[in-house]
Amino acid sequence: MPEQSPLEPAEGDPFGPHNLPYGVFSTADEPDRRRLGVRIGDHVLDAGAAAHALGSPYAALLARPSLNPLMAAGRTAWRDVRRALTAWVTVPAHRADIEPLLHPLGSVTLHLPYEIADYVDFYASEHHATNVGRIFRPDGDALPANWKHLPIGYHGRAGTIVVSGTDVTRPSGQRKAPADPVPVFGPSVKLDIEAEVGFVVGTPSRQGSPVEQASFRDHVFGLSLLNDWSARDIQAWEYVPLGPFLGKSFATSVSAWVTPLEALDAARVAPPARTAELLPYLDDADAEEPGGFDLRISVSLNGQVISEPPFSTMYWTAAQQLTHMTVNGASLRTGDLFASGTVSGAEREQRGSLLELTWNGTEPLELPAGKRTFLEDGDEVTLTAWAPGPDGTRVGLGEVTGRVVPA
Amino acid sequence: MPEQSPLEPAEGDPFGPHNLPYGVFSTADEPDRRRLGVRIGDHVLDAGAAAHALGSPYAALLARPSLNPLMAAGRTAWRDVRRALTAWVTVPAHRADIEPLLHPLGSVTLHLPYEIADYVDFYASEHHATNVGRIFRPDGDALPANWKHLPIGYHGRAGTIVVSGTDVTRPSGQRKAPADPVPVFGPSVKLDIEAEVGFVVGTPSRQGSPVEQASFRDHVFGLSLLNDWSARDIQAWEYVPLGPFLGKSFATSVSAWVTPLEALDAARVAPPARTAELLPYLDDADAEEPGGFDLRISVSLNGQVISEPPFSTMYWTAAQQLTHMTVNGASLRTGDLFASGTVSGAEREQRGSLLELTWNGTEPLELPAGKRTFLEDGDEVTLTAWAPGPDGTRVGLGEVTGRVVPA
Repeated sequence: MPEQSPLEPAEGDPFGPHNLPYGVFSTADEPDRRRLGVRIGDHVLDAGAAAHALGSPYAALLARPSLNPLMAAGRTAWRDVRRALTAWVTVPAHRADIEPLLHPLGSVTLHLPYEIADYVDFYASEHHATNVGRIFRPDGDALPANWKHLPIGYHGRAGTIVVSGTDVTRPSGQRKAPADPVPVFGPSVKLDIEAEVGFVVGTPSRQGSPVEQASFRDHVFGLSLLNDWSARDIQAWEYVPLGPFLGKSFATSVSAWVTPLEALDAARVAPPARTAELLPYLDDADAEEPGGFDLRISVSLNGQVISEPPFSTMYWTAAQQLTHMTVNGASLRTGDLFASGTVSGAEREQRGSLLELTWNGTEPLELPAGKRTFLEDGDEVTLTAWAPGPDGTRVGLGEVTGRVVPA
Repeated sequence: MPEQSPLEPAEGDPFGPHNLPYGVFSTADEPDRRRLGVRIGDHVLDAGAAAHALGSPYAALLARPSLNPLMAAGRTAWRDVRRALTAWVTVPAHRADIEPLLHPLGSVTLHLPYEIADYVDFYASEHHATNVGRIFRPDGDALPANWKHLPIGYHGRAGTIVVSGTDVTRPSGQRKAPADPVPVFGPSVKLDIEAEVGFVVGTPSRQGSPVEQASFRDHVFGLSLLNDWSARDIQAWEYVPLGPFLGKSFATSVSAWVTPLEALDAARVAPPARTAELLPYLDDADAEEPGGFDLRISVSLNGQVISEPPFSTMYWTAAQQLTHMTVNGASLRTGDLFASGTVSGAEREQRGSLLELTWNGTEPLELPAGKRTFLEDGDEVTLTAWAPGPDGTRVGLGEVTGRVVPA
């Protein structure tokens, strides 16, 4: 047997050749030259260099410092490039060309993989929305009246989305407890996470032309884990009547890796049964393929798993969100990112935020490092996930991690 | 006397050499070549060509298809370029070089003058917020509890901002009157306008570093009129709890012309007296210059003036908005656009939306073309404005206009 090739990850590796997520990296030698990379096991393939070496017709698209051109090239290009990449990393005849173009994951710097256009955040988990309702409106209906009729969403700040590994400075702002006569200013005392999944648009659409659910795969390039850091105290004081603003806009972390939709074909599952009749544009009872994704997310705080939210429980699917977001004629741009909202399952240990896990701080988590209600300075939060892949494999989603630094 | 030069607009022209707003244009000969232009009277000066002809050190910055590079170049460059432009259009010795580079306004196509990064919309008029409160919460407090403590704002959709003159397709969406058992879907029946002023950021800031009010002129390049088209019925059903989304995201119109801050030095006025104590970061009692702008806006519907909102009545200033938007550490990017929210004065004929002018449709406007509650297909809305300039002049803001086309 020859020495183990980086092109042959161990059996069961969730980043095997059935996965091949995209990212953007630079090396220590050339820190300013960003290049497209594809992850295979614990290595990154320089995709542009590989395409050049093997004479691919997509060499120009792949020799770019960002995913945007490939994302804008459309579904046929996405399929063709993925086929080519699969061949490059699996066909033994290519090995001599490809192996020199692999970089150990630990040796590269990963960057935001694409330029983000608009960022929208949804609120698509019934368990999450119900928990929030019970915490903040204990005497009212847990779900808002519109919740079962439309996927509630709002626009967030695209300019403060950072790549996994970026430190997050604790935000300052106004907060006012109900008993306080006036608001006070200072560092947030209720800094939280939200475990989410973000979908990125490749193919744009024209203003005035809604996008149907059936066109989901024509427009959406892939998905990533996302942590929507939230300052609950800032948010509580500011959000009536126009929604969250500074409680969210200080930072949102996304994974450095974008998993192409095709890698998750074996993970498609039916969403939960709908308990209210949907308007025709949102109805997905007769969809050609199920709209859910069976992603098993894990949330760690300083290395300790604190929650395992199941993405399969999301009430509203990404296809429904895409359709809703454009039904008023709003256009899509390459790089539009829309996230699911906090993923929470039915069980306590499946909740995707500390707000829910500690019931707004009233039920602290007992961790090896001590009690936690909300995040303390120095805390590091990491989201990982996997999904069923073809033939019993697992498809790993790139992690998203971030550490809280003091205000 | 020689023939009148386009460089000598009539006395009193609000687009004289004291104004010089920036835009981006193309000509019929070269429709794909976008160029920076500066408006003088009824003409557009090709700024890049002028800089080249006169050997300006800023020729490279001005020979670009968008304002972003100039906006990113910072305040010293803004001042120097404005001085140079003023000389080019006023010094007789330059006339022979400059006149051939002027294009009649009616002969060019105007484009979005810059690429928009993030778009934030505020809610800064006390009269507007009070009217909205009275209409929708007749038995409650007119202003939300936080309104006097912070400038309420939210993120909007940057990708659907269109330049003045672009038709606006009536959006469709869900609406549900309180008496309806379930929501219905269809074209909005309460399509409205919001007369606003938008401020555009030139100099970016670093994530984690708030921007003080005193740095307003270092970061903000200029301002434009803006019409935040709003579907009141869609908005009313969707906006609890995360704020406006599809009721706004279908289209926002901005003027093709950006007025540099320096052109409005004579229009700075003190904002209304503050009736609640402000936290130090928002306090502007000792500001070096007054934070308000004396802009007199005019709203026309099919050529008939229906309102004249005074921007000087805005409770929250643009400097306060900039500071608030970044106090949590959110960064600024070149091209960030933040708008004031609807400008409404104290008087009925100063209200900046049809919602207020018709009291949610209960008091129709009597117009030459008939009664109006909300917008009908074919309606054209135009915002114009002027402000006091130096030496008794008027500084015109570029108009923003748009026509409603059927869903």
